[in-house]
Amino acid sequence: MKPVKVGLLGLGTVGTGVVRIVEGHQEDLQGQVGSPIVIEKVLVHNKNKARSISIDSSKLTEDPWEIIHHPDIDVIVEVMGGIAHTKEYIMEALASGKHVVTANKDLMALHGKEILAKAHEHNCDVFYEASVAGGIPIIRTLIDGFSSDRITKIMGIVNGTTNYILTKMSQEGASYDDVLKEAQELGYAEADPTSDVEGLDAARKMTILSTLGFRANVDLNDVSVQGMSKVSKDDILYAKRLGYEVKLLGIAERQDDEFSISVQPTMVKKSHPIASVNGVYNAVYVYGEAVGETMFYGPGAGELPTATSIVADLVAVVKNLKLGVNGKQGVVAFKEKKLKSDEQISSKYFLLLHVDDRAGVLARITQVFADFEVSLESVLQQPNPSNPEAEIIVITHDANKAAINKVLQKFESLDVIRKVKSVYRVEG
Amino acid sequence: MKPVKVGLLGLGTVGTGVVRIVEGHQEDLQGQVGSPIVIEKVLVHNKNKARSISIDSSKLTEDPWEIIHHPDIDVIVEVMGGIAHTKEYIMEALASGKHVVTANKDLMALHGKEILAKAHEHNCDVFYEASVAGGIPIIRTLIDGFSSDRITKIMGIVNGTTNYILTKMSQEGASYDDVLKEAQELGYAEADPTSDVEGLDAARKMTILSTLGFRANVDLNDVSVQGMSKVSKDDILYAKRLGYEVKLLGIAERQDDEFSISVQPTMVKKSHPIASVNGVYNAVYVYGEAVGETMFYGPGAGELPTATSIVADLVAVVKNLKLGVNGKQGVVAFKEKKLKSDEQISSKYFLLLHVDDRAGVLARITQVFADFEVSLESVLQQPNPSNPEAEIIVITHDANKAAINKVLQKFESLDVIRKVKSVYRVEG
Repeated sequence: MKPVKVGLLGLGTVGTGVVRIVEGHQEDLQGQVGSPIVIEKVLVHNKNKARSISIDSSKLTEDPWEIIHHPDIDVIVEVMGGIAHTKEYIMEALASGKHVVTANKDLMALHGKEILAKAHEHNCDVFYEASVAGGIPIIRTLIDGFSSDRITKIMGIVNGTTNYILTKMSQEGASYDDVLKEAQELGYAEADPTSDVEGLDAARKMTILSTLGFRANVDLNDVSVQGMSKVSKDDILYAKRLGYEVKLLGIAERQDDEFSISVQPTMVKKSHPIASVNGVYNAVYVYGEAVGETMFYGPGAGELPTATSIVADLVAVVKNLKLGVNGKQGVVAFKEKKLKSDEQISSKYFLLLHVDDRAGVLARITQVFADFEVSLESVLQQPNPSNPEAEIIVITHDANKAAINKVLQKFESLDVIRKVKSVYRVEG
Repeated sequence: MKPVKVGLLGLGTVGTGVVRIVEGHQEDLQGQVGSPIVIEKVLVHNKNKARSISIDSSKLTEDPWEIIHHPDIDVIVEVMGGIAHTKEYIMEALASGKHVVTANKDLMALHGKEILAKAHEHNCDVFYEASVAGGIPIIRTLIDGFSSDRITKIMGIVNGTTNYILTKMSQEGASYDDVLKEAQELGYAEADPTSDVEGLDAARKMTILSTLGFRANVDLNDVSVQGMSKVSKDDILYAKRLGYEVKLLGIAERQDDEFSISVQPTMVKKSHPIASVNGVYNAVYVYGEAVGETMFYGPGAGELPTATSIVADLVAVVKNLKLGVNGKQGVVAFKEKKLKSDEQISSKYFLLLHVDDRAGVLARITQVFADFEVSLESVLQQPNPSNPEAEIIVITHDANKAAINKVLQKFESLDVIRKVKSVYRVEG
C-alpha cells in the first residue's frame, strides 16, 4: 500500500526519538495502519552536524518551506519548539492541507484556539498529546476516556524539573540552590531555569489540560502562577512533620460552571496518590463527578517517552487518513468561560509565622483569622531555639483566597508578627 | 438532529448508572456528538419492581428480542452480565447491524474474538472499556495511547474485592476470614466470593488486557491462576517487615515476542507505585519499551464509575455513526501467540520455611537452591518462639519458575524442613 510520508521539523532529542520509533517499530505500525510510515524530510539547523542516529543525508534540509510545501508529504511532525516561526510553519502547513502533530506546549497554550480553527477549516488533524506530561496519554484520556463525565478537578505534577528538585529536597534535606545546581549538571534543569521554577511551563500545560477538561477556551492569563524557587528546606521539614509533601501543583477546579486555575507550591497530604509521585515523573489527578478519583502517572519528558506520544498521534492521523475523516475529531461545543473570583476560590492553607515570644500573641493572631471568618484546623506554637521569638504554625479549614489575603494584609501591620515566613495552599 | 436510540440490556447497579449519566449529562453529550442520545428501551426481569430512578414504564420490557430487533435502536448497551444468553443477544444484535457497548468481562475474555469478528463482518462497533478496571480508561490507552510502543509488561490490581481484603489485612493486622466477612456485609464481596478470591475475575481481565497490550489472541486458559484465600496475616506481617505489601497481581510479560500471563498474590516492594494502591481502587501499571513506566489508577467498580466508561464508549459509537466509520477501528494484524515455558518465566521469590532448629540445617537448604542454580538475595534465620523449630526466610534473585518448582519438590523429601509455610512471587 502507498506509504504515508512525514515531514519532521526538528531533529533534537525528541525528533531523534521519533525517528527511532518510526524506524524501530515500523512492522508494528504497519500492522495497525495498513501502510508504511516514512520520514521523508527532516528540518535541521545544520545538515553537516554529527548525529546519534544514521539518517540518509538527502532527507535533511535546512529550508522549512521545502517540507511545508512538499507535494508528497501528508503529515508534519513539529518538534523544533519556539513560537514565532513555528506558528507560521504550522499555519501554512495546515493551509496546504497537511496534518500536524506537535509537542509544542507553548504554542498550543498561546495559540491553540487559532491553530485548531485553521485545522478545522482545512479538514486537517492537529494532535498534541506530547505537549503535556510527555509519555502519559492524558490528552486523549480527557477527550475520549472522560467524554461522558463532568470533570470538576485536575491536579497535575506536570513539570519534571521542579518535581525532581522538590523530591531531592524532601528526601535528602538539601537546599533549593544545591539541588538546582545538581539538576543542571545532570541535564534535568536548563541553564536558565526560570520557565520551570517560576511555574510558567506548568501554567502552559494547565491551560491545555483545563481547556480540554472543562471544555472552555482557557487562556494562559487565566492561570494564577506562583513559582517554587522560594520553597525552603525548613518548609519541607515542617510539611513532612505534619504529614505532607510540598509539590508544585497545577490545580484546575470547577464548580457550577465557574472555574479557577492556578500553579503554586502546595502541601499535599501523604495519603493522597499524587504525594508519592517522585523525581522527574509526572502525574495528572482527575476528579470527575461520576468517575470519582483517577490518576495517570508516567515519564513527563525524555527522548523516547515523548516520542511515544508523538508517534501514537501519528498513528491516529494515519488511521483517519485511511477512513477519510481527518479534521472531524474534537469539534465540541465549548462552554462560556466564567472564572471564579478570589472570594469563590476555597482551600485549606498552611502558615508559618515568626512572632514575639510573649503573652497574648496567639490570642491576637487568632483574632485576625476570626475577624475575616477563617476557621482553624490546627495551631502549633513552639519556641524557636535560635531566636528570642516563637514560631506559630497554623493550618486553616477551607477558606477563600480573598479572606486569606486580607489576613495576610492585616498581619503586615500587626506589631507582634516579625515575619510571615511561609504560606502554602494545602490539598488532600 | 435525529436522536441516537439506545437499547439497554439490564437495569441493575451499572444500568441505573448509565441512565443517570445519559440523562444527567445530556447537554454535554449533545455538545460533543451533535444529537440527542435517548435510552429507548430497557430490558428488565420484572417490569413492576420498585427502582431508585424514575423511568417511563413504557420503556421497560421483559422481552430481549423487542430490543434486539427494534427497528429504531442503533446501539445496544449490555450490562446484564452472564454468558450464554448474553452472547446470543449480542451476536444477534450485531447481525442486525446494531453497535454494542458491553461491560461484560466474562463474555469478552471467553468469546471476544468471535464477537469482534462478527462485528467486523457487519461493520459494527463493539466497545468494552468498562469490562476492565471500571472507571479507568485503560482499554483505549492500550489501543490508542500506546499504539506506537511495544508493551513488555502489564501488572494490574484489577479486582477491588481482593484489594480491599488485602489492604485491610495489611493496615489492621486482621485475618482473611474476618475481613472477608466484613467485606460481604459492606457489599464489597459476593456471598460466594470464589470468582474474586480465587483470582478468576482477575484472570479474565488480564486475558483482555494482554490481548490488547501484546496484540495477540490470548485465551483465558493461557493465564496461570492462583488465588489469595490462603494469604495469612503472618505472611503480610513478614512482607511489611521486609518492605513489601502483598497484592493480588495480574502480571503479563513479554520478551522477544514470547509471553506469560499469571495472577497470584505477589510481594510488591513499597517503593513501587502499585504497592500503595489501596482499598477497592484498581490500577494498571504498563511498561513500554519506549515510554517506560506508567500507571493508571481509579475506581475499579461501582455504579457511576463503570457507567462513565460505558457512556464514553457510547459517545465513541455515536461519533463513528456521524462519520460513517463504525466497525473500522481496532482491526490490527495480530501476532502469533507464543507462550513462555516455566524455564523462561523469571522472577524473584520469597519463601518462608519452618525447619528443625539444629546445626547444618541452613547449609543443607541453601545447597538445594545451589543445586538448581537459584541464587539468593537475602536469607534470614530466626528462632520461632512458640516452637522448637526455626524460621528461615529466603528472597531469591531472579529465578525461573521451573527451577523454583524443583526446589520446592526437593524440599518435600528433605527431613530438616517441617513445612514450606509460604511461597510468593516478588516484584519491584
